[in-house]
Amino acid sequence: MSIQFSHLIVVGVGLLGASIGLAVRQRGLARTVIGIGRNRSTLDIALRRQAIDIGLTDWRAVPLVPGQTTLAVVCTPVSTIPEMVGRVTALLGEAPETLITDVGSTKESICRTIADPRFIGSHPIAGSEKTGPEFGDSELFQGRTTILTPTERNRESDVERIERFWTSIGSRVVRMDARRHDEILAVTSHLPHALSATLQSVPTHEESLFSGTGFLGMTRLAAGSPEVWGDIFTENRDSLLAALCRFEDRLHELVAALEAGDKERIVRFLADAGSR
Amino acid sequence: MSIQFSHLIVVGVGLLGASIGLAVRQRGLARTVIGIGRNRSTLDIALRRQAIDIGLTDWRAVPLVPGQTTLAVVCTPVSTIPEMVGRVTALLGEAPETLITDVGSTKESICRTIADPRFIGSHPIAGSEKTGPEFGDSELFQGRTTILTPTERNRESDVERIERFWTSIGSRVVRMDARRHDEILAVTSHLPHALSATLQSVPTHEESLFSGTGFLGMTRLAAGSPEVWGDIFTENRDSLLAALCRFEDRLHELVAALEAGDKERIVRFLADAGSR
Repeated sequence: MSIQFSHLIVVGVGLLGASIGLAVRQRGLARTVIGIGRNRSTLDIALRRQAIDIGLTDWRAVPLVPGQTTLAVVCTPVSTIPEMVGRVTALLGEAPETLITDVGSTKESICRTIADPRFIGSHPIAGSEKTGPEFGDSELFQGRTTILTPTERNRESDVERIERFWTSIGSRVVRMDARRHDEILAVTSHLPHALSATLQSVPTHEESLFSGTGFLGMTRLAAGSPEVWGDIFTENRDSLLAALCRFEDRLHELVAALEAGDKERIVRFLADAGSR
Repeated sequence: MSIQFSHLIVVGVGLLGASIGLAVRQRGLARTVIGIGRNRSTLDIALRRQAIDIGLTDWRAVPLVPGQTTLAVVCTPVSTIPEMVGRVTALLGEAPETLITDVGSTKESICRTIADPRFIGSHPIAGSEKTGPEFGDSELFQGRTTILTPTERNRESDVERIERFWTSIGSRVVRMDARRHDEILAVTSHLPHALSATLQSVPTHEESLFSGTGFLGMTRLAAGSPEVWGDIFTENRDSLLAALCRFEDRLHELVAALEAGDKERIVRFLADAGSR
């Protein structure tokens, strides 16, 4: 593949940031991948894994040459994304050949807050309960869907460049309104995480000794970072509460069938669910 | 290993029955493994997989020689286990060198219903959302826990023989009161299944197009047989309802934290859950 940007700046070199670095370096999509992070040790892991070419804790040290094209991808917890995009904007000045995106799991508040027209919100639906650059994977986006949530502030040609970026690292791209994104992800991602964590908290120690593979599979998500997910839940509170309501409505149908001891209704509930 | 029983009779040759047959044949624990089932085609798959030596749909055709030791393992849905044990009892007559067990996921009602003192309830905590002998696995019980729920009707020496049987095919064995078994499994197995099926039923078709690996992992259990699980839920209704209550209490703590928009409380909830 050919170079799309001179510099790729990855802000926050965790699982997603390192995976983007690896995917871009292996495909030769940028000349230089610069990782920016708070922890030297995390950057060093990303450097050792060859996910980035340069790892910096100091934004002022970023080596930018005027006139070169830069893509900055902000991969920090959702509540910090507007601030990080602000720092990227300050760093890059008015350079027109610059684009900024993110990988945040919520989009509405981020896209409403950020005024820079060079920012286009992205959410690659990829990841795992693992965290940290040591788990970075150049193929993490392969076959996954990335949702873009452009606004009327964005230029169509810029949106197309961001689209091309994600498809180059293996992802399918879908455009969507930021609010609809948050409603959908509340159901398909934030709700499962909430249920996983809640289930994990139910058994006593004695009971948990008898967990089988079913329980372990259902509580795998609960191992995700409480800070990252606390951020997501807070940002997407209204849609998550609505999704939880929908879940509880369905759960009460099952509870009613159980209370009635109506096996036929219970079987029908399970069959309907399984056929979705 | 050495022969423990002349005949092993497996009633119901699905995933668990076929796995027991494979485990016993590979370890030489019985001279002959006889599979009994309703469907000729299922028995033929088990025969092809070498999970059983003989496959019969007609109980009267079972070739038993008086004086030989027999273990019968009933691997049918829980609601049919007492009836199937009754048929085994009728088949085996008064033969003293005979033991009967099962693999049912509920134990209280089964152990209360069955009067034959040669029956000792078992529940190997192993399995998967897959069904059918084609997924049979001789190592399915390796490293898993099997709960035995003997009653005062059982002889200690018989319980020890059943214990030896399960440990011979790789399982750890724990003895427990049948009611306590049902309470614990309601939390660690039936509750996760109920949540998985309920979650599966929440998204609209459009929303489900954006499911990631998290959602898929959380709804894997929902693919289990509605009949098998409808049976389990009906048999263990009271304990499952109690487990659902405990789940809802915890869920409402999370909902309250979300409604208050209290990020610190949300993060604490997730951190507490993840540390279990």
